[in-house]
Amino acid sequence: MQTCGERLTGMRDRAPLVHNITNFVAMNVMANVLLAAGASPAMVHAREEVAEFAALSQALTVNIGTASTEWGLSMEEAARVMQKAGRPWVFDPVGVGATKFRQALSDRLLDLHPTVVRGNASEIMTLAGLEGRARGVDAGDSVADAEQAARQLAGRTGGIIAVSGPVDYVTDGKRALRVSNGHPLMGRITVMGCSLNGVIAAFCVDESALEATAAALAYYGAAGEIAGAAATGPGSFMPAFLDALHAMTAADLDAAASVEAAT
Amino acid sequence: MQTCGERLTGMRDRAPLVHNITNFVAMNVMANVLLAAGASPAMVHAREEVAEFAALSQALTVNIGTASTEWGLSMEEAARVMQKAGRPWVFDPVGVGATKFRQALSDRLLDLHPTVVRGNASEIMTLAGLEGRARGVDAGDSVADAEQAARQLAGRTGGIIAVSGPVDYVTDGKRALRVSNGHPLMGRITVMGCSLNGVIAAFCVDESALEATAAALAYYGAAGEIAGAAATGPGSFMPAFLDALHAMTAADLDAAASVEAAT
Amino acid sequence: MQTCGERLTGMRDRAPLVHNITNFVAMNVMANVLLAAGASPAMVHAREEVAEFAALSQALTVNIGTASTEWGLSMEEAARVMQKAGRPWVFDPVGVGATKFRQALSDRLLDLHPTVVRGNASEIMTLAGLEGRARGVDAGDSVADAEQAARQLAGRTGGIIAVSGPVDYVTDGKRALRVSNGHPLMGRITVMGCSLNGVIAAFCVDESALEATAAALAYYGAAGEIAGAAATGPGSFMPAFLDALHAMTAADLDAAASVEAAT
Repeated sequence: MQTCGERLTGMRDRAPLVHNITNFVAMNVMANVLLAAGASPAMVHAREEVAEFAALSQALTVNIGTASTEWGLSMEEAARVMQKAGRPWVFDPVGVGATKFRQALSDRLLDLHPTVVRGNASEIMTLAGLEGRARGVDAGDSVADAEQAARQLAGRTGGIIAVSGPVDYVTDGKRALRVSNGHPLMGRITVMGCSLNGVIAAFCVDESALEATAAALAYYGAAGEIAGAAATGPGSFMPAFLDALHAMTAADLDAAASVEAAT
Repeated sequence: MQTCGERLTGMRDRAPLVHNITNFVAMNVMANVLLAAGASPAMVHAREEVAEFAALSQALTVNIGTASTEWGLSMEEAARVMQKAGRPWVFDPVGVGATKFRQALSDRLLDLHPTVVRGNASEIMTLAGLEGRARGVDAGDSVADAEQAARQLAGRTGGIIAVSGPVDYVTDGKRALRVSNGHPLMGRITVMGCSLNGVIAAFCVDESALEATAAALAYYGAAGEIAGAAATGPGSFMPAFLDALHAMTAADLDAAASVEAAT
Repeated sequence: MQTCGERLTGMRDRAPLVHNITNFVAMNVMANVLLAAGASPAMVHAREEVAEFAALSQALTVNIGTASTEWGLSMEEAARVMQKAGRPWVFDPVGVGATKFRQALSDRLLDLHPTVVRGNASEIMTLAGLEGRARGVDAGDSVADAEQAARQLAGRTGGIIAVSGPVDYVTDGKRALRVSNGHPLMGRITVMGCSLNGVIAAFCVDESALEATAAALAYYGAAGEIAGAAATGPGSFMPAFLDALHAMTAADLDAAASVEAAT
């Protein structure tokens, strides 16, 4: 069994090309997060080229934060490419509880068996058919509220479900892990969750998705702890966070990672 | 009569969900500005869901900086939802003097009675039917040049007009206030005006728009003064600005705010 | 023959309005880079207004990083306006080797005779009809590999070709210059190349494009050296970089610039 640090080293050695169809708000930060971590990001969404680009990529992320009907079709095309190729893809159902359009699009994407679904508690509950208490794109529910929903949803997708929160919950429907790395300032900065999707996808290349997802969460959260200790607010957090993602060694991560089996 | 600091506290207590249809350049910074201030931002523009999302929101901002015909329709739909619900919406006519498309779209949006129109002097003059001296998206006119135009325009919309500049001018067509907070570096960083729209919208929720707008301008400008004093250039300004928005207390704001009646 | 510093002063005196049709990832950073340098940026892409806006602008940049068929048409329209007006426009063929769509669009744009084509070695080789070793949007080839391709491509466009890398190569097909300013961290941050296009365009206004491009590269790279020395990673690099672009004087640039004729 590899440590989180060994997984970080493996990801950096592979330096995977990660194709992202994400929202307009996240694109720049997500690309910088992936570069700082050691992966190679690309943001490609046009239907004219999305399937061709997906075929070149080691992993894909799909995020519906600013989707449209047209972009939804691109998301489905790219996801199908990854599904057929047996390569990992990560789905983030941003604000799925807010509109019928998001629910219908998410439903179609779930049918394409995402390797990992990552969302906040309210989003995961909505996907599982439960009534969440989301407000816009923010969670109104606790991670504990969503654990059962996450296991159910894993039964549907056959993949991993990751519920983000102060302590993250990651499950394949049978086994589950808790990751308690992170910092409260991460909740006061936009697209922290969106950008995380890319890191999860990069860690999942050629690896078991449950452990790889937990390692990605630990790495991301540990970098957040370092940045949070150095920052004087949400503005100074972001530069410090990218620096921490970039500087973190495998040994640093193994010393900081807080991952344990959920009972 | 509430102080600016009391209005800041009230906004934070409400933590309003602010729906933004803004330009691609502004989306990330604007979301971070709203989060740092204490509001809950969402960027949603697709016609498939824009009216449904607006109905969930306490306030709306509309910005034509990178609009298209399709996005223009979304802007009108969302604005109509807010108008009917009696909730505040803020309109920013970015670069309206530059193209016929922007002028026609702005004209349709003005007919939907924005609670607040915020722009630079040239933009406000163009909306009032005067020939401004804009250059691209930058003002070529002084705030003083635009005061009469602002009062006229308020007569048309029935709302508040805010002219941004070294000293801002805010009017409902009869009464007017001047806000002299701010820092010159704010003019050397993109989307500072765009991001301000969200803060104005958040302050206007459940409040009188003239005073709420002035308080938002004072808060934003006061944070700019703190950041400007700490920064060594436009790059270090932005992290310091977000930190200052986040750290500012009601007492800090009351000590710094420079709002006075225009005679 | 002007020095790089004199060219920087000339650009700042002109403060050109630079119209950019660039990718979603780059828009915000590129606008801030142009403002920090002393130019006036605008991001305008909608077909409804793109030709009208181009006609107001002193220079144009076109970047296919997140293009679509529709945006491609806007790019061609705007480029035609600049071509007819004899004003500079810069083309960045991001990831051209990755998809057929990018190749076809790039081919049409090359026919409109860009003043400057700037890309990494793999992109320039692909445009010249050679098989590059690109991976996603990253170069897999060295600048030296691409020098012959750059000269060939200059023969086709009649303009300047700039190959970005640790040492940049700039040629009009006959003469060539090498610029060795820069810092390794610039490769670990997204849209550094995209944002550079705007600076090149601004320097080219009313100037000979070969020398103006080299001066822009030297200015950008010299600011990167200052930022790289101050930064502790890619996150702290970006604020320091914008500060350095803003603070650099003509004398600073003349002391730092490393431009020499290629033999």
